Amino acid sequence: MTGDSQLDWWQRPDLFYQNKKLIFAGHNVNKLAYQFGTPSFVYSSARIEANLKRIRQALDDAGLAGRSSIFYAMKANRFAPLLRFLKQTGGCGIDACSPNEVKHAVSCGFQPSEISFTATSLSKNDFAMLDRYHGLFMDCDTLHAIRSWGELNPGSEIGIRINPAAGIGRACNDRLQYAGCTTTKFGIYREQFEQALELAAEFDLTVSKIHFHTGCGYLTPELDQLDHVISEGMKFVADAPDVKRVNIGGGLGVPHLPEDQALDLAQWSAVLNRHFGKRDLHIEVEPGDYIVKDAGLLLLAKTYVETKRDTLFVGVDAGFNIAPEPAYYGLPFQPVTLFLDDSPLRPTHVVGNINEALDVWYENAPLPDLDQHDYLALINAGAYSSSMASNHCMRGEFSEFLLP
Amino acid sequence: MTGDSQLDWWQRPDLFYQNKKLIFAGHNVNKLAYQFGTPSFVYSSARIEANLKRIRQALDDAGLAGRSSIFYAMKANRFAPLLRFLKQTGGCGIDACSPNEVKHAVSCGFQPSEISFTATSLSKNDFAMLDRYHGLFMDCDTLHAIRSWGELNPGSEIGIRINPAAGIGRACNDRLQYAGCTTTKFGIYREQFEQALELAAEFDLTVSKIHFHTGCGYLTPELDQLDHVISEGMKFVADAPDVKRVNIGGGLGVPHLPEDQALDLAQWSAVLNRHFGKRDLHIEVEPGDYIVKDAGLLLLAKTYVETKRDTLFVGVDAGFNIAPEPAYYGLPFQPVTLFLDDSPLRPTHVVGNINEALDVWYENAPLPDLDQHDYLALINAGAYSSSMASNHCMRGEFSEFLLP
Repeated sequence: MTGDSQLDWWQRPDLFYQNKKLIFAGHNVNKLAYQFGTPSFVYSSARIEANLKRIRQALDDAGLAGRSSIFYAMKANRFAPLLRFLKQTGGCGIDACSPNEVKHAVSCGFQPSEISFTATSLSKNDFAMLDRYHGLFMDCDTLHAIRSWGELNPGSEIGIRINPAAGIGRACNDRLQYAGCTTTKFGIYREQFEQALELAAEFDLTVSKIHFHTGCGYLTPELDQLDHVISEGMKFVADAPDVKRVNIGGGLGVPHLPEDQALDLAQWSAVLNRHFGKRDLHIEVEPGDYIVKDAGLLLLAKTYVETKRDTLFVGVDAGFNIAPEPAYYGLPFQPVTLFLDDSPLRPTHVVGNINEALDVWYENAPLPDLDQHDYLALINAGAYSSSMASNHCMRGEFSEFLLP
Repeated sequence: MTGDSQLDWWQRPDLFYQNKKLIFAGHNVNKLAYQFGTPSFVYSSARIEANLKRIRQALDDAGLAGRSSIFYAMKANRFAPLLRFLKQTGGCGIDACSPNEVKHAVSCGFQPSEISFTATSLSKNDFAMLDRYHGLFMDCDTLHAIRSWGELNPGSEIGIRINPAAGIGRACNDRLQYAGCTTTKFGIYREQFEQALELAAEFDLTVSKIHFHTGCGYLTPELDQLDHVISEGMKFVADAPDVKRVNIGGGLGVPHLPEDQALDLAQWSAVLNRHFGKRDLHIEVEPGDYIVKDAGLLLLAKTYVETKRDTLFVGVDAGFNIAPEPAYYGLPFQPVTLFLDDSPLRPTHVVGNINEALDVWYENAPLPDLDQHDYLALINAGAYSSSMASNHCMRGEFSEFLLP
């Protein structure tokens, strides 16, 4: 590896400069950009598998070997080759949140019994569609859902999504807050849990799983909050005698900024061990971001470089609409060059081709003179990018490639 | 009209309760929802035409009859029947911002010469595509754009998009700020304007238009800011001897909240008259929101009603991904019932079917007991909704209908 270690915080054994060229998953990224054209998302199947295995190892290290499952949150990235690849690994099931996601997961090879379904505001049509997938496991997040599913499947097993408490839970920012200070639409609160269990009993439903959405984007400093959320969630488990499985949601984050500390999975594992190591429970986790985010690059072509007033801008050939996270959630994707040169680094605003002020990929990215550079790559573009893309301004075209 | 006047601030002659039923553009909205299914956007062609005529009248009242043009900003809503209808009215051209928008506008009947093109970060391919549309008018927003277009079309007429000044300009909120406190990617600043004119001269380009993006969402209280922006913009015009046309952008807003004061077009007209009434200039405006936003309803089906803790929630069968403005820009679409009943109004959170905390349509909407209500309508859903829709969570399905 080369380059300034502070600036190149994102370099790792499968993403680094070799002979001044950016290598990703064994490929010369410049060649990928040239062949595939831009804008293109490229995903590393090797990195995805490694991320998955790392979580598996952490679960095993927590004493949960043989009694834990990973459900990949497909809303993070539903690119069909990627889902098919995940199925081939055998390392995970699917966390789905809409009937069409279930359909798509099945079309990519997953059995309904490998799908954990957790959604909100389901319509009568949704329930009817879901009912066609025998073996699908339903987590109910309202009394209404318990009643609706109970009417269709009396005597079956269900999960209940609970909302552990107000005022706790990691939220990446206000916009991503799942279990926070105000009352949200998600899950059954403590006050109504008894009522939920009674309602389930009315339909002879066995509540065999408790699902708690814990927030998202946990890095090491936030693990204390996760610990607290699990403690609160386990109070529900204590009141539900048939519970055999606990789903602690997803929420494992990846660093976005040089100053972010990567999640220490050993510490995460220790939290799980403390809560579940000696409990006779099957533990489920639902990572999305953690599995695919850092396995994806967004390749963009430079359109222009120009100083306006005191600010240096580089334009690229796609905007926030094909990868909304940086603009909407304030989680920037660091831009990196596809080769190193010796020109000094200057703070540069990387901006897209949409007529909106929020269409800024990154402010003050440390970039060299870009005269010789045709492309840029944005790291961490593997999750909540293509899956949330829109055709705003009819700028919605892009390609996706899963690299072997 | 019936109902409480404070709550029903949004009622108007084409959207009101008659015999307790909600009527929109002469249709019983309940019947529309039943026939079309949900989620559906319904647009009133009559309202669109009325909005367009109101702007035309205001331009004429400003003394600009025969020397002013309206270019509809198609990024607000590109539904093909809607564009075709606008073409039929003969009242406007098109403001386009990408090659695909140009292609789509042409497919809907507009001539290239009826299209004003203003974009940012154009690629070489973009310029080549645009060059195929003879008569398209190009506003250049960087020196790079002047050079690129000049190389393709030496000796032609162009516009220059200018950035009037820092620290002024109406911004609906931080996320919509076009011409504000920090240096943005948009337009040529004062410091570089001379250089831009020289560059245009190099390619024998005649700078016959100055385009200034003034911000967005102007209501009456902000007209002073518009006035100021125009004053600043006119300083550029003074330095560009060949300018015959001035495009003052769009930015005409509609009320979103009961406390919002509607834009007084007479006052807007007076601002234009003051600046342009006695000038030998052709004035262009680019409204988007103002023409289509309040001409659209989003029809949604209720999925459940349930109190969680202290908060009453009603779920609906679509989420923020099909109409991102409320969630992302903080511009809520007020939910209204399709018929009136006598039950007391209670503050109700209207929430969608996406597993994200920001998927809230409206907080504390005053709504009656919803037991008998199958549907809700969201007003102001005609702009920046379907055009920005994504298939996030594979919940991207919706229909659109242009009502006669």
